[in-house]
Amino acid sequence: MHYPEPISKLMESFMKLPGIGPKTAARLAFFVLGMKEDTVLDFAKALVDAKRNLSFCSVCGHITDVDPCQICQDTSRDRSMICVVQDPKDVIAMEKMRDYTGLYHVLQGAISPMDGIGPEDINVPSLLTRLQDEEVKELILATNPTIEGEATAMYISRLVRPSGIRTTRIAHGLPVGGDLEYADEVTLSKALEGRRELS
Amino acid sequence: MHYPEPISKLMESFMKLPGIGPKTAARLAFFVLGMKEDTVLDFAKALVDAKRNLSFCSVCGHITDVDPCQICQDTSRDRSMICVVQDPKDVIAMEKMRDYTGLYHVLQGAISPMDGIGPEDINVPSLLTRLQDEEVKELILATNPTIEGEATAMYISRLVRPSGIRTTRIAHGLPVGGDLEYADEVTLSKALEGRRELS
Repeated sequence: MHYPEPISKLMESFMKLPGIGPKTAARLAFFVLGMKEDTVLDFAKALVDAKRNLSFCSVCGHITDVDPCQICQDTSRDRSMICVVQDPKDVIAMEKMRDYTGLYHVLQGAISPMDGIGPEDINVPSLLTRLQDEEVKELILATNPTIEGEATAMYISRLVRPSGIRTTRIAHGLPVGGDLEYADEVTLSKALEGRRELS
Repeated sequence: MHYPEPISKLMESFMKLPGIGPKTAARLAFFVLGMKEDTVLDFAKALVDAKRNLSFCSVCGHITDVDPCQICQDTSRDRSMICVVQDPKDVIAMEKMRDYTGLYHVLQGAISPMDGIGPEDINVPSLLTRLQDEEVKELILATNPTIEGEATAMYISRLVRPSGIRTTRIAHGLPVGGDLEYADEVTLSKALEGRRELS
């Protein structure tokens, strides 16, 4: 006899989440016991609602509770630009910035031959369909600055080139607030390569 | 527009848990979206069940789904010994050891004048009632080796002394597998003080 069954079941559920081991699960489960019943019920409801009511936008692939998503529906946005990102969280990061008013396309991953992920396994075909249908003038490739992200950007760029749509890649360089001394050589080399005239 | 509402609500719920900030909450919430629906429903049910079906044992104060708890109900256990601990998790730790067959008493805290916690705020009165009613011969004080835990053990020991019940305190010393070199001086002093004849 270790934990009473309801608490060990709750611990098992917590342990299915990433980065939560037996000790953290026990701590969280005991914390839940000390929470108000309403708060726990809200938590349970939020879990079920998130799972049941969220899906991927049929246009851009972003996570949404309405289809098409609010961004795709927003008529005030610039429909001539599509920013291609790997993950719904990247859309959130871009939106927090408030500088971008175009549309998005969420790939839900990146091309990775090592993991057997090809262009058909991520949302590349739907991107090509969008480019045929819509009045798109610029495709901003904002995949991650990793090997997979770079390869994906390169692949899409070559695929789109014949259509005459302008394809751009977000800049690589030193992060704002960073320190030259601690920058890795690849970043530094990219920063030097991407240098611009001071006006 | 940042996150769709269902996911931001789920993130808020995760953020109410200890040690979970906005970034971890987002990671967990997105992970939940990728889980099977059944698993998510089980998680939600586990939360509600744990909150609704668990209470504290009316005898020993341990967390339980039946009252009195399974340990108090177990007739094979030695009813002449009560081990006093601060927390239900301490009972679990003791039970994992499998060496102790007596009963428990969970204080749900320790005396701490700094935090305004006196003997009446923790399960000391119910312990005294148990000592009058039952055939208890030994009280093992297994509160934590902290200032509050020591003070609580000392307090209970003085309170119980007139009744003639044997009160013992678990040993302090070097943890097994520990290193003398890295032991703090208080632990080392306790270890020296508690030295025993080798037989």
